[in-house]
Amino acid sequence: MTAQSDSPGSAAFPDLSAGGAWMNSEIMPISQASIPVTDWGLIHSDITYDVVPVWDGAFFRLGHYLKRFFRSMEILNLDPGLSAEEITATLQKLVSATGLRKAYVAMVTSRGVNMVPGSRDPRDCRNHFFAWCVPYIHVIRPDIAEGGAQVHIAKSVRRISPQSVDPRVKNYHWGDFTKGLFEAKGAGAETTVLLDEEGNVTEGPGFNVFAVMDRRLVTAKDGVLEGISRQTVLEIAGEMGMTAEIRTLPLAELLQSDEVFITTSGGGVAPITKVDDHIFSNGAPGEVTLAIRKAYFDWAVRPENRTEVNYEL
Amino acid sequence: MTAQSDSPGSAAFPDLSAGGAWMNSEIMPISQASIPVTDWGLIHSDITYDVVPVWDGAFFRLGHYLKRFFRSMEILNLDPGLSAEEITATLQKLVSATGLRKAYVAMVTSRGVNMVPGSRDPRDCRNHFFAWCVPYIHVIRPDIAEGGAQVHIAKSVRRISPQSVDPRVKNYHWGDFTKGLFEAKGAGAETTVLLDEEGNVTEGPGFNVFAVMDRRLVTAKDGVLEGISRQTVLEIAGEMGMTAEIRTLPLAELLQSDEVFITTSGGGVAPITKVDDHIFSNGAPGEVTLAIRKAYFDWAVRPENRTEVNYEL
Repeated sequence: MTAQSDSPGSAAFPDLSAGGAWMNSEIMPISQASIPVTDWGLIHSDITYDVVPVWDGAFFRLGHYLKRFFRSMEILNLDPGLSAEEITATLQKLVSATGLRKAYVAMVTSRGVNMVPGSRDPRDCRNHFFAWCVPYIHVIRPDIAEGGAQVHIAKSVRRISPQSVDPRVKNYHWGDFTKGLFEAKGAGAETTVLLDEEGNVTEGPGFNVFAVMDRRLVTAKDGVLEGISRQTVLEIAGEMGMTAEIRTLPLAELLQSDEVFITTSGGGVAPITKVDDHIFSNGAPGEVTLAIRKAYFDWAVRPENRTEVNYEL
Repeated sequence: MTAQSDSPGSAAFPDLSAGGAWMNSEIMPISQASIPVTDWGLIHSDITYDVVPVWDGAFFRLGHYLKRFFRSMEILNLDPGLSAEEITATLQKLVSATGLRKAYVAMVTSRGVNMVPGSRDPRDCRNHFFAWCVPYIHVIRPDIAEGGAQVHIAKSVRRISPQSVDPRVKNYHWGDFTKGLFEAKGAGAETTVLLDEEGNVTEGPGFNVFAVMDRRLVTAKDGVLEGISRQTVLEIAGEMGMTAEIRTLPLAELLQSDEVFITTSGGGVAPITKVDDHIFSNGAPGEVTLAIRKAYFDWAVRPENRTEVNYEL
């Protein structure tokens, strides 16, 4: 960030340690970043995003996240007005300005405000890219994840069908997840997992689900985001000589598995020791899960997975 | 609006004729109204709203809209922090400040910003009510609605199932509609209608659909918003001695009907003369549709349906 390098530590520059945003070419405290109430990103949830983690001063697998983000935008006919290289430079400036070494970095493109008064045509909107970052967010609190978390299978709601909203396009249509979350919190669980209309396991708010059966991994094929952390675990499984199956995963099969874990950019691999009333591996994180969790953190420090943040920007 | 009545026409007060918003107890030009990028209303589409039309200086059936809005909030566990009377007073002040006599008035409650850093629990958010109004918006341009519009049945997408997101709770989950709208615009149609997974007619972006068969009206029962304009038309049909059926409406039946129209708070009753390649009533608005359209506008001036805006506020 030019301003900061001009005057490092100057009181004229706000403290961004609680988070910052890049909006219309300006960097500002996250608390000041906002979008118009008439932006279609809000009023029609016509928006896509991606979130790349920063671990120990480096973006993790940034290329993978950018590729998925651009694919999402292409499917939705959204134009960020910036190339992947320009977005990378923007995220670098933003994270550098905050000084955060462990961060949750969101890149977002919304349909924007309709430039023709009264128009209901999405093609009349001015698309709008922005970015923000905050101190790292865990989908499951680390102290809980460490010992194994409890998830609740949502009973009153099913995952939005891929026939309606493509789950591979990272989106903010979380009405189903939120309903499941209220159920889960009421049941004393950390988070929720949603089923599809046939009763198969899909995903939860911000994570994919894996079942471990002997040394085989099983995760849902359809109706889910193709998570980068999920992909990383599939690659790790390959390196460890384990079999991974990407297929339909009925709930009954999940409940009979040896171990369960979730994958997320907000915490990596988190052991699940309880699904509803079913306890797994005697209520403690399983052996396979712990090995994969360790491997995931090892991968985060491999040079080929890291794009170092330049904090001198 | 106190400020305006203190200094009517003062240059110190911004021109709100393009629209205004009420946000955190302040009235401002619509272009200045925004919400934080981390508001769950945006990042999880965890938000509900309603839109009441102002016709000729009066809210139309305001009580109906408020009742639905409060029901939506109750189902989503959202608290606006204001009573129905206080919201009415707020909307009065807002419309009065803009001076608009024909307006589209939105009341919105979002989950808000999570007050616990890193929390993924919706109960940790500070709910946030706001309102905005703009010059009246027509779902279908009046010049086109007059002669009868063309709608396109979306082929690549189905309406989000009620098992996932309750369509009776007015929501911004419009990913399915937007995909349908792109299809429709590509096909030269004004707007789109979505089918459910069984191929039955549901609704379009911002409107309900009616088929006319002889003098019977048919409109979808499930998987749709219970529109206030839809309700008004059902009451009008009763007054006119027509039969109205609220039930499953297969696409094939819609295509064989005599007339088709849509109902919306953004334009009332709009005739549809073409659905895909099927032409209705020789390409002109049908007799029953025109009678109901006229009755709808008549209802808008009935005193019992009007809450006069007090422009002296």
